[in-house]
Amino acid sequence: MMEPKKRILILGGGFAGVDCTKKLEKYFQNRDEIEITLVSDDNFLLFTPMLPQVASGIITPRHIVVPLRTLCKKSRIYESVIRDIDPVNKHVTLEGTPEKRGVRIHYDYLVIALGSETNFFGLQNVEKYSFTMKTLADALSLRNRLIDMLEQAENETREELKRRLLTFVIVGGGFAGVETAGEINDFLYDALNYYHNIKREDINVIIIEALSSILPGFNKKLVEFAHSKLEKNGIKILLDTIVSDFDGKNVIVKKSAKSTSTIKSKTIIPSYTLLWAAGVTPVEIIKKSVFKTMKGQVIVNEFLEIPNFLGVFAIGDCSRFDESINKSYPPTAQLAE
Amino acid sequence: MMEPKKRILILGGGFAGVDCTKKLEKYFQNRDEIEITLVSDDNFLLFTPMLPQVASGIITPRHIVVPLRTLCKKSRIYESVIRDIDPVNKHVTLEGTPEKRGVRIHYDYLVIALGSETNFFGLQNVEKYSFTMKTLADALSLRNRLIDMLEQAENETREELKRRLLTFVIVGGGFAGVETAGEINDFLYDALNYYHNIKREDINVIIIEALSSILPGFNKKLVEFAHSKLEKNGIKILLDTIVSDFDGKNVIVKKSAKSTSTIKSKTIIPSYTLLWAAGVTPVEIIKKSVFKTMKGQVIVNEFLEIPNFLGVFAIGDCSRFDESINKSYPPTAQLAE
Repeated sequence: MMEPKKRILILGGGFAGVDCTKKLEKYFQNRDEIEITLVSDDNFLLFTPMLPQVASGIITPRHIVVPLRTLCKKSRIYESVIRDIDPVNKHVTLEGTPEKRGVRIHYDYLVIALGSETNFFGLQNVEKYSFTMKTLADALSLRNRLIDMLEQAENETREELKRRLLTFVIVGGGFAGVETAGEINDFLYDALNYYHNIKREDINVIIIEALSSILPGFNKKLVEFAHSKLEKNGIKILLDTIVSDFDGKNVIVKKSAKSTSTIKSKTIIPSYTLLWAAGVTPVEIIKKSVFKTMKGQVIVNEFLEIPNFLGVFAIGDCSRFDESINKSYPPTAQLAE
Repeated sequence: MMEPKKRILILGGGFAGVDCTKKLEKYFQNRDEIEITLVSDDNFLLFTPMLPQVASGIITPRHIVVPLRTLCKKSRIYESVIRDIDPVNKHVTLEGTPEKRGVRIHYDYLVIALGSETNFFGLQNVEKYSFTMKTLADALSLRNRLIDMLEQAENETREELKRRLLTFVIVGGGFAGVETAGEINDFLYDALNYYHNIKREDINVIIIEALSSILPGFNKKLVEFAHSKLEKNGIKILLDTIVSDFDGKNVIVKKSAKSTSTIKSKTIIPSYTLLWAAGVTPVEIIKKSVFKTMKGQVIVNEFLEIPNFLGVFAIGDCSRFDESINKSYPPTAQLAE
């Protein structure tokens, strides 16, 4: 008698989901009774830590994407958005098209690796006008914006307007923010060879961080080195500072509540370009799921399994250890393993 | 006494405009009394004949763009859209921004090199749903569409829908159409390595040409060679055929009036993807200008000068010799010189 097939379903085509799929493919490579399926909203894995280099044009988009079908050769792959996770009936429904109802995939084991999305902390204007750094399109938009600002500034005769065009504000002093600030700064300085009316001192790249140091969670020595290196390259760093509004022309900042400074008054930084790299929040599908969450992340036990839903696992940015054994880690992909 | 400066203004950053600017820079390199200004709506020259290769992913976008500022080092460059050409008062006005009124540039000599845009011959549905191949964004959209269709077809169980997903119609058998069809075809065949449920015979690439041969204006032997090569590679070629409608799902075609065939009835080709490479028309700014045009192109004399407007020249796709000395040439950049 043939054993019934065991169906493993992985949701999410980021580092966590793809790495998990590859490991399962290898582990079960000679076991025909195991069926592995991967669902991702893109058909490629994006190497997100190098997005800032795409924005600065050092590397080209195709160098940081790998087709899922070349990475996960033995799995069935669906390029689709997930509409619903039903852990009681053990199936996941994918978004349909006007022509077609959504596909329903039944599983025996489920791995949720849906990552996170940008958290604007309720600042609607900021969300509307700012750039982010999560997708390839984001990186290319930012790159186009930098060039556009240089082009406009080159023929701009009014000093005030020129300064606003050439001021670039990065919110968030984590890995993404610091890396992006550095890349933007280098790109702009290199570009000056072609813009004869723009001088080095006309350019302002500013990092704004709510905490009292950049790169929280990283080694203290590294933080100090990075901080002084950035400043040496002309980047301004404002610590204990938060952004409260941005209308596309002016960035409103104030000292954070935790700051020891007694001055809490608002300051205005005139700038057309604000990059938001300040925080992440889980995706909608997890927020509305039946799973127990903390700060929006699915709570898992030491086996990364979701309590009360045996056979359902959550990994990567979207999961969080049970508080009793939880420690603090920087939110990077190395830890997703 | 110093001579007054002579101001030369070139409109258009395509092959014609950039080549003209470079030649003028070289010709007048030691003449400080000559001022050259180039206006382009992009800050790069796009090598349009290689857009199909970008669509197929053989080359990456940055390989077919060259920054104008590296090509034309001595000219003043404006990245802007032209709002108005006034050959009576000898000035050109550029589009402003909400912050700023449009710049006005005065000239002594004007060179118009504004190229052409896609002509849909009044077919509004076709314009709405079809892809074109004029800009980098066009090429990338088409590439994404090809991948998207493969992804959907891979997991599609209904044969009819699968065939529609995998049918790609290219309208226009000129250089752009033929090149694009070949690239699309190669790309799809190569991609099959990763899509195990799609077979070679599931894929349909079709060229539709209104005339009785592809590549009009080119050498007859080349045309025959190209025709049989395309068919050998699995591409279907429908001659004497025109597209009359496309709703995003079905392409309506009929035999052209010139066709010797007595059958004029409509045929439906089920396809989600139609690329329109069938014709060009001059840009809006020329259509509404005071210059005398024929089929929308500015009429010039043997010096490429516009009669009645001494010192104003038109070159490239947007110009046409006076009928009395006009001959037929294929509309390619080599001839723009």
